[in-house]
Formats: sequence, structure tokens, C-alpha cells
Amino acid sequence: MKTIVFTPIGSLISNDKDKADLPRQPIFSNSKAVIRLNKGCNFEEGLKDLEGFERLWVIFHFDKNSSWKPLVDPPINCDGKKKGVFSTRSPYRPNGIGISVVNILKIDGLDIHIEKSDMIDGTPILDIKPYIPRSDSFPQSRFGWVESAESNKFTIKFTGDVESKIAFLEKRGIFLKNRIFTQLEYDPFNSKKKRVERSGSQYILKIGTWRVCFGNIEKEIFISDIGSGYTKSEICDDSDKYGDKDIHKDFLDSFLISN
Amino acid sequence: MKTIVFTPIGSLISNDKDKADLPRQPIFSNSKAVIRLNKGCNFEEGLKDLEGFERLWVIFHFDKNSSWKPLVDPPINCDGKKKGVFSTRSPYRPNGIGISVVNILKIDGLDIHIEKSDMIDGTPILDIKPYIPRSDSFPQSRFGWVESAESNKFTIKFTGDVESKIAFLEKRGIFLKNRIFTQLEYDPFNSKKKRVERSGSQYILKIGTWRVCFGNIEKEIFISDIGSGYTKSEICDDSDKYGDKDIHKDFLDSFLISN
Repeated sequence: MKTIVFTPIGSLISNDKDKADLPRQPIFSNSKAVIRLNKGCNFEEGLKDLEGFERLWVIFHFDKNSSWKPLVDPPINCDGKKKGVFSTRSPYRPNGIGISVVNILKIDGLDIHIEKSDMIDGTPILDIKPYIPRSDSFPQSRFGWVESAESNKFTIKFTGDVESKIAFLEKRGIFLKNRIFTQLEYDPFNSKKKRVERSGSQYILKIGTWRVCFGNIEKEIFISDIGSGYTKSEICDDSDKYGDKDIHKDFLDSFLISN
Repeated sequence: MKTIVFTPIGSLISNDKDKADLPRQPIFSNSKAVIRLNKGCNFEEGLKDLEGFERLWVIFHFDKNSSWKPLVDPPINCDGKKKGVFSTRSPYRPNGIGISVVNILKIDGLDIHIEKSDMIDGTPILDIKPYIPRSDSFPQSRFGWVESAESNKFTIKFTGDVESKIAFLEKRGIFLKNRIFTQLEYDPFNSKKKRVERSGSQYILKIGTWRVCFGNIEKEIFISDIGSGYTKSEICDDSDKYGDKDIHKDFLDSFLISN
């Protein structure tokens, strides 16, 4: 079949540098980002009248992925049976095209400032279109296997001083909240899909060099603590592979954890 | 900027052969079509679990268009001021990518039978994704200039025996209804945008070799008659450039129009 060649109209600028930084559910995304369109193409004029719209479709290229498989095991999948790739929004697809609805904050020249982004920094943008409820919004649509998977969703609750620990780290550029939701809302104890392990009556989820301690009562997940993944001796030695030991030391000093 | 090459995963099979056959508003589309995926790619497995979804995003290539302009005058535009292309769903775009929501009727091997199609026959399909209300449906979104344009919408009403004339022609493969809506719901008297002309106190809209007679009271359009565009002498001569004179003769015989 004939191939089709597109040239990106611009790219995304975002603090989300890694796929794991992205929210699964855009509703929890507080990510702001900028779609920067290319210069010299008259795109300034093309953006006229867009600011009156609340939401924008962004059509982009999953440029970090090149392979795909006909059957996939999506993160929210809980029944252990793989799903056909076309029945999922998996980023690994025959043609790696993503579509996301984002909120328009403001437009400044060739920069579209957006909120609720679920794309990573550097993503090539192929097209943008206004969100028009009449043609795009069908709130009552049946949504197949996702509907039953969502009934297996866990509610996440933060206990003790966890929220202040998260806030402490956010100020230092470490964003754990999205990842906690992403990892634990569905299938939270599945050690094949995520870095989770049992520890007594609790569980530990590893996020980079950080450790999230949680337990559950039925469909509620209680995040009981955030800790450092470094041991006492590791934290003091001279190596610093992930360049984050200073933050860990600050954190441990501030929260007096005997780790 | 680096180009991106896609190979279509399949193409559309439809009775809508011409852009003018397409509905502007999918809500009036009764068009059924088939998305036929390519053989030999394991797409059969990729379609697993899709049938449980009510609606499907189809991401396709506007392969009949190659040019674009930064400012466009969309059909529903009524204020005479051109709009930025990115604030429209115009098919003439820097990257000719379309997104449409269609209804899934059934899946049969590599064929996805759909309804509410607004694509033409042969359209290359780039990707398909399930419609998931949580991520796709925002019924309350503001929609900029389209919102005010829609307040200038005309209501179309059929009077006399117009509906039976339309039905007569539909049985013979002539579909006027979508085109009447497309042409007359917005800016119906604009002869620069459409083949419309005044005729006494009425107006005539030309659709191929057919003539639609209409008038209006405020924001209501009354379709008062459907007629043949051939004169009496034309209908009888031997030429038949559009291959439709037999249908016109049948029509004239059936409805006893002295044209």
C-alpha cells in the first residue's frame, strides 16, 4: 500500500521527560506544556480563532515506539486476558498515532499553552483541531472491556504525613503522585507488571529511587509512607548514579526517618 | 523537521464516492461503510475485543487534498470573516489527517462495518481506536466561533410531495437529502459558496442535474419542490453526458411535472 509522509507542524515542550511521568487518567494530570509550532509556515494565521475553544485535539506521533503486537496487556487490564491492540489506546500501534484532548490555556504567537497534557517532552505534533462537542462528545457510549476493567479500580487514599512528603518532593522536582495513581489504581499487586513487592502485611512500590508503602482494605489503597530506596550506607557513599542523593538526604533530615 | 512515514492499515469502502455526498453533520448521516483492513498483518488479532465498544475513532488521510491555506472560509461560517485553519476541521490542512467518530455495527474478519461514516470511498485508514467517554467526551466544552455560527443555523423542512420525490430518487441511487442539509443549513443564499440563485420569491439550489426549489421564513427553510435540471428539449435529445436521463424521464413521468 502507498505510504504517506507527514512533516510535524511542531513539537511539545514539557517537564514530563519520561513515559512513566505521564498520567494514565488525564483527569489527574496537572501537567502543563507548550505546543510550539514551526516558524516560517504561516501557522500564526492558522491559529487565528482557536483561543475561543476550551479544548484541543492534539494528533501526535509516538516517536519513542516502533514495534507493535496484535495483542497487548494494558495497565488497567485485570482479567489476565490480552486485548486486541485496536481495542486499546496502547501507544504501540501499527501506525504510532496518538490523539489527546487537552485544555487550551492561552495562545502566544506560535506557542499554544495547554493543560492536561499526557504527552512527553519532544513529542512531534502532526495536527491540531478544535474540540467540538457535537462531533466529538458521546458521554453515554458503551466502552467494552474498559468498562468492566474500570469496575476493578482501586481508590487511592493518602494517610499520615504522606501528602506533605509528596509536596516536599514536588518542590524539588520529584513528582510521585501521578505515578502512584498510574501504578496502583488498577491491578496494584501485580509484580509482573510493576515494581511491587510484599513486605509483611504491607506492600512496597518502587518508583525510581523512592519507595511507596501501601496497604489495602477491599478496593481502597492506603498510602501509608514514602521513603528512600537508599540504605543508610548507600546514602553516605560517594557514588551518585541518579544524581539525587542530596534530595534524599534533605528528605531524610526533614522527616527524621530511620531508614 | 524529520518526516514521518505511515503505511495505511486499510481503506474505506463506501457508496459515498464524492466529497459532496458527505454529510456535514454526522447526525444526519445514514451512511454505512466498511473499513477493510489489510491482509497478512495479523490485524485479525488486533481487532479482538473491539466489538464491545459502541463507537470508534477512525484516523484517516484526506488523500484527495494536498494544498492548504492558513485562513479558510468553512461552510458553516456566516460572518464573512475567514477562520484560522487550526480552529476548523477543514480537510485542507498542513498534514491532511482526519479524525471521525463512527458507530461500530459489526466486525467480520478484517471488515469493520460502520455507520455514520463521513469519509469517501477509498479513504486510506491510518489507525483506529476505541471511543472511551472518560477520555474523549466533554459535552460542555466551549467551542469558539462554531458556537456563534451554529446560532445562525437554518431549520430545513420538506413540504408537499418533496419527501416522496426524494424517496423515489433514493431508490434509484440519487441521494439528495444530505446535500440539501449540507448546502442549506448555513448561509443558504450565498451564491459565491454554492450553486444557488434567486427565482422570483423562491430560490433554486442546483445539485448535479437536479433542482431544489426553496423559500424561507426567518430561520426556516421550506423545500417546496424537486425538479429536473434538463429542459424539455434536452431530455429528449440523444446525448447523456451524466448517464442519468432515464432516471429523469422516470421521475418526470411519475410526478407529472411540466418542466
